[in-house]
Order: sequence, then C-alpha cells, then structure tokens
Amino acid sequence: MTYCLAIKLDEGLVFCSDSRTNAGADQVSSYSKLHRFSMPGDRQLVILTAGNLATTQAVIERLDRDLRGEADYNFAKAEQISDMADYIGRISIEEQKKFVDGDSPKAGFKPEASFIVGGQIKGNPTELYLIYPQGNHIRCSDEHPFLQIGETKYGKPILDRIIRPETPHEVAMRCALVSMDSTMRSNATVGPPIELLFYQVDTLQDPAKYYKLVEDDEYWMLLRKSWDQKIIESFDELPTISEHQE
Amino acid sequence: MTYCLAIKLDEGLVFCSDSRTNAGADQVSSYSKLHRFSMPGDRQLVILTAGNLATTQAVIERLDRDLRGEADYNFAKAEQISDMADYIGRISIEEQKKFVDGDSPKAGFKPEASFIVGGQIKGNPTELYLIYPQGNHIRCSDEHPFLQIGETKYGKPILDRIIRPETPHEVAMRCALVSMDSTMRSNATVGPPIELLFYQVDTLQDPAKYYKLVEDDEYWMLLRKSWDQKIIESFDELPTISEHQE
Repeated sequence: MTYCLAIKLDEGLVFCSDSRTNAGADQVSSYSKLHRFSMPGDRQLVILTAGNLATTQAVIERLDRDLRGEADYNFAKAEQISDMADYIGRISIEEQKKFVDGDSPKAGFKPEASFIVGGQIKGNPTELYLIYPQGNHIRCSDEHPFLQIGETKYGKPILDRIIRPETPHEVAMRCALVSMDSTMRSNATVGPPIELLFYQVDTLQDPAKYYKLVEDDEYWMLLRKSWDQKIIESFDELPTISEHQE
Repeated sequence: MTYCLAIKLDEGLVFCSDSRTNAGADQVSSYSKLHRFSMPGDRQLVILTAGNLATTQAVIERLDRDLRGEADYNFAKAEQISDMADYIGRISIEEQKKFVDGDSPKAGFKPEASFIVGGQIKGNPTELYLIYPQGNHIRCSDEHPFLQIGETKYGKPILDRIIRPETPHEVAMRCALVSMDSTMRSNATVGPPIELLFYQVDTLQDPAKYYKLVEDDEYWMLLRKSWDQKIIESFDELPTISEHQE
C-alpha cells in the first residue's frame, strides 16, 4: 500500500509520501513515490504516485523520455499544470491498457494507478490536482486544501482539523508527518523512509525544504513519541460521561 | 453508511453505534443499529448491524421470531455466544440469497450485511465476534480488544492508542465516543443519535449503563469541542522540524 498527500497553502505546496511497496506480504520493498521535474526560473512539478508500481514507473519514465526527446507534448511545453494532469491521465490509461486483454483483465490483476501532481509555471499561480485511475482529475477544495492517495482514511482527521490555506508551511509539514504517523500505526504496508518537500510559491526554484526521514530518524522518533503521549494525556483530560449524564 | 464498534474489557463489554442510514444522498433516515436480547439472570446478547438495512432488519426480526416461537434453535437454546455468531451468519446468508437471482446480482445492488455480536451466557465468560457478509466470524485480538464494522478507518487510530483489556469501562466508553467523533467529522453519512452501552461482566442483567446521545446533547457537544481544542493545542506543542533538521 501507499500513503501520499499534498497541501496547497498560500505560502506554497507541501508534498509528503511513504516509500513502502508490496506485492503480497512476502514481497516488500522500498521505492520513492515522490518525483520532481525542475526547470529552475521557469517551472516546477512534483508528482506523487500510488497503485501498481509497473504502471507508475512506466508513466514517470514516459514523462521523462518525452521531456528529453522530441515529443509533441511534454512538461517544457505545458501552459498550465492542469494540462500536465490531463497528459499524465492519458499516459496512465495507455500504460494500464497494455496489460489488459480486451475488457476482461485477469482476475486479481490491478494495473490501476493514482497520482497527485502539483507545481507552478511562470506567470501562473501554484496548482494541485489528483488524477484518478480512470485518468480524470480534481482540484483540492478551498476550505480544506489537501489531496490524498493510497491509504487515505486513517490520516485524514488531523488534516481536517489543522490544514487551512493560511496555515504556515512549517505547521503543514508537521501535520503531514502526524497524518503519516496515524496511517503507519494502523496499516503495516505504509512505511518509511518518509519524503517531505516544501515548494515556496513564486520562487520557481528547487524546493525550499526537503527531508527524507528514515525509520530511526531522531526527529521522526521524537515526533511520534510526543504525539502519542500528548494524545493520551489529552484524552485523559476530557470530561467524563458520569459527570454529565445521570 | 454506518459506524459501530464494540470493546471487550476485563470489566465487561462496551458497544457503540451511530444511527444514520442512507440509500443515496437524498434518502437519509435514522434507525437504531443496536439490538438487545435479554434473559436476566441467564444470558445477555447485544447485536450491532451494518450494511443493507433490509437484510439487517430481516435478520433481527428472524432472531426475534425464532426466540418467541418454536424454532429448532434460538438464543434461549444457545450454549455459547459463538454458536449465536454461527446462527446469525447462516440467517444473514439466507436473507441475502433471497434477493439475488443465481450468481449474477443486479449491478449495484448490495444485499451484504455485517454484524458484531457480544454477550454472556451463564457459566461462560463474555464473548465478542464480528460476522462478515459471507457469514463467517472472527474474535477480537487480545492486545487490541475491539471490533468495528462500517466506516472503520477514521476512528481506528485512537482505539489503537487507548484500548487495552484492563482499560476501565468509563475510559473505553469515552474512547468509543472520540472514535465516533473522528468518523463523523470525515464521513457525513455517519450521524447521531449515538447509542452507547456497557454490559458489566458476570451480572447477566440488563446493561449497567446505557446512553443515547442526540446531536445537541450537552455532554456530546462538550466532548467534541474539548477534543478538538486539545488536539489542536497538542499539535501546536509538538517539536518543530526546523529545530531538529538542518
């Protein structure tokens, strides 16, 4: 499984991803799910991937090849990040179709993949999209400006409580890690290293901050332990039912 | 959707359920999903239901009819709660089959239902089971002794952190409500009234505590607000990344 999320702040974009990949419980490995395409001073793109690893690798490779070669369309020619979302959606469908015979895929075989793409092209605001396995895409909401792919539910409540467009990037990055922690506690197939990136709006440069947190990273361990303690303390301080109900 | 959970404590059993039912977003109503069968001094049973409302109503009605009539098997004749879990699983399958022609159910029609059953029969310990739509059932784990049906993921992290067999029932009941709160914030089709019940081990009597919390219940509102504030405060107090990473 996978858990990736991205947040669209007034200050810029935050991306966070785990690195665990598994095909069955006995075939677990670690792959980065965060991919960057950078043309400093002109455009920046970050892609997070979830789903079938063969599909996501093929899509990223194709984007890379199109950018280096003479493709009709590529990241360098994109006018908007939303066009890139269309383009990635199309490529994803093409790659998925390669491995399905007619309308009846082999039982249990799932070539599907999801993507989050975000970035900025000179002269435009930052943009952030989620691309479904069917190739279509959505924007994040204005009030709760984040998108998730993979194992999304365990880590959603804390994002709902904390994340707003005006949240400082430092707070949003910490919230992404707490959301990742809740997910990893409940789903063993989501695991470190955790990649965490902040792109600062209008810089059009490489990320202002980038961290790769391994399992025994000092800050990651401190954060997890502190959060666990604080949750338990907070819970203990809640009003009790017997005080309020006869 | 639905969210129900049950907890197996040394002190007894805690059950909690929401009451929202919907068939499409424009057909929302409120039904109790917590059902009790009581034979004071001899045996006690609580059933929580999720899934197709027609199926769960038919199953509960059938249990009731079997108990009042001359059925070969019923709750009064059960030797163990696990036998009841088998029996409910069989009835559930029978009811589901009534509405499916052959092997090809109508596209989009889902007669499936899940159940949590728990209770105690004189001379035995308390028992707690989750019955899958396929009719088979599982016990809860010893370390994290709770079971959930319906929309289970949003509310699981807090249960993982707090619930242990030795947890006092008052704490477990509060934790069930916090778990319900996290779920309701993220899924609009889970809603009040919230039913909350505590059966005290070896009493074989009606529940020691039972609450039905409506949306504007004073304690429920206080609990939700306090938890939200404490989570946000706790989060604000966490160590910051910039302190720990260059």
